[in-house]
Amino acid sequence: MTEPQFEKIALVGIGLIGSSLARVIRREGLAKHIAISTRSAATLKRAEELGLGDSYSTDAKEAVRDADLVIVSVPVGSSGAVAEEIAPALKQGAILTDVGSTKGSVIAQMAPHVPAGVHFIPGHPLAGTEKSGPDAGFADLFENRWCIFTPLPGTDPAALEKLSSFWRACGSNVDVMDAEHHDRVLAIVSHLPHIIAYNIVGTASDLEEVAEGEVIKYAASGFRDFTRLAASDPTMWRDVCLHNKDAILEMLARFSEDLAYLQKAVRWGDGEKLFDLFTRTRAVRRSIIEAGQEVDVPDFGRQVVAHPPKS
Amino acid sequence: MTEPQFEKIALVGIGLIGSSLARVIRREGLAKHIAISTRSAATLKRAEELGLGDSYSTDAKEAVRDADLVIVSVPVGSSGAVAEEIAPALKQGAILTDVGSTKGSVIAQMAPHVPAGVHFIPGHPLAGTEKSGPDAGFADLFENRWCIFTPLPGTDPAALEKLSSFWRACGSNVDVMDAEHHDRVLAIVSHLPHIIAYNIVGTASDLEEVAEGEVIKYAASGFRDFTRLAASDPTMWRDVCLHNKDAILEMLARFSEDLAYLQKAVRWGDGEKLFDLFTRTRAVRRSIIEAGQEVDVPDFGRQVVAHPPKS
Repeated sequence: MTEPQFEKIALVGIGLIGSSLARVIRREGLAKHIAISTRSAATLKRAEELGLGDSYSTDAKEAVRDADLVIVSVPVGSSGAVAEEIAPALKQGAILTDVGSTKGSVIAQMAPHVPAGVHFIPGHPLAGTEKSGPDAGFADLFENRWCIFTPLPGTDPAALEKLSSFWRACGSNVDVMDAEHHDRVLAIVSHLPHIIAYNIVGTASDLEEVAEGEVIKYAASGFRDFTRLAASDPTMWRDVCLHNKDAILEMLARFSEDLAYLQKAVRWGDGEKLFDLFTRTRAVRRSIIEAGQEVDVPDFGRQVVAHPPKS
Repeated sequence: MTEPQFEKIALVGIGLIGSSLARVIRREGLAKHIAISTRSAATLKRAEELGLGDSYSTDAKEAVRDADLVIVSVPVGSSGAVAEEIAPALKQGAILTDVGSTKGSVIAQMAPHVPAGVHFIPGHPLAGTEKSGPDAGFADLFENRWCIFTPLPGTDPAALEKLSSFWRACGSNVDVMDAEHHDRVLAIVSHLPHIIAYNIVGTASDLEEVAEGEVIKYAASGFRDFTRLAASDPTMWRDVCLHNKDAILEMLARFSEDLAYLQKAVRWGDGEKLFDLFTRTRAVRRSIIEAGQEVDVPDFGRQVVAHPPKS
């Protein structure tokens, strides 16, 4: 087996992302030692029951001491507090990264605490499911997904390459962009979709004349597709909304403008406008499949789950 | 083998729904003869290549002659023309039904043409995928799905029971409600989700500063879930929008009101409001899974598709 990339990797946070990292690091032999920390004793205990790491502590400083790579996987609103807490214990030359869904705010929160000589490289693996917690993770989560870095000016190229190499070993492709662009792109490909999903599920729940039981029963006609995103971790998504406000408001405004146009076409029975939009959007899914970013089966593969092929 | 329920079933329209019906009728032996008609010669030829029926005609009157059960599976805007065309050829005692996603408009279009002595029972199986055409159908499409009837006053109970029995044999559960209620329920569980999906995909396509390539590349972070509904048949969905206008406008208004509330919470950094909504909606998915209307695996089962379990 090849020599592990890292002596010690510290995972601060052991939810879906942290626990998936633990599993793939283990499987691929990317570190000699995996140190896990989280603030909740109960979660930490569960991580230990699952055998996710080699050492466990509710004290993040313990975990990051002597670590060559520190990965922070916490709700973005907690990034600053974590950075402040672990800063004194980071060793010289260590790489410090995160997985947060917003970058500008995370940088503003964390960067001031990072000691000179520590390589802070903010990151964001575009991967996840609607599940949460250490049981939810799995080693293949990052496979064929994109991991975006938003390095600060003056980042050591060797450190960036080492971190890129780590994420490739986890199965991902790597991209680099500036933080503001990241936040705008993610506002449309991730944040707005989640907000819209949460919204429509809320609207359906509030109807007086359509019983909740009916919404549930008849969900297979379209509604159920939205409920997955709307089942995502509330803390994580609250923080995303609080920490990417400008870009999200911009995307919400555009979405609403377009929806008003659609609504008007419905009101005036403008079949041509409707048909044109519905035709235009059809090709997008095919492009996503061809880019390897979506499974190439109907209905996301639900039939495959319901009726697995006989061996 | 048990005696088939019907001597002859006529399928007017052989797209996703019609071709799924053909396959399940064949598999379950529900008719001695399956007559298929569609207006397009090319589609009809494909249906014949697939061996979906026993007779094929571009003339719907041919197909429905002597049929005991006639199932119309066409875009709802075409319902009236179809009814007018086939009316003279319907035999006495035949059951005439449809699968349209709106019911009030279909009834208004079709009922005037239905001869006395023919049992017109409007129906709607809540099942589908984003695919279209005779190749897209499969026999299990209706399994464990709900089929809703909106029978007119004075419908013969024996005919209703016979049609219910047919749909149960296709694997479905059956519900009965009035057409207006159907249209409002479907507006929220199906029509609004599709419209919202179409809209967000359109909004993403129109952004100037986020390249389409980026939207595609990074779609796995949430956006891709919407692209499935937005890949649905444009003709079908144009017609749905044109034929359920009032209920759709009502649901759009409610959706937009709720979205403005969310947007305000984002603008004012009201984390508590956001957290409350995001928590409330999380339970809905669990209810849908427990009702048997959604697969009980993360991410719709995409991982199962990407990494099938080894036998």
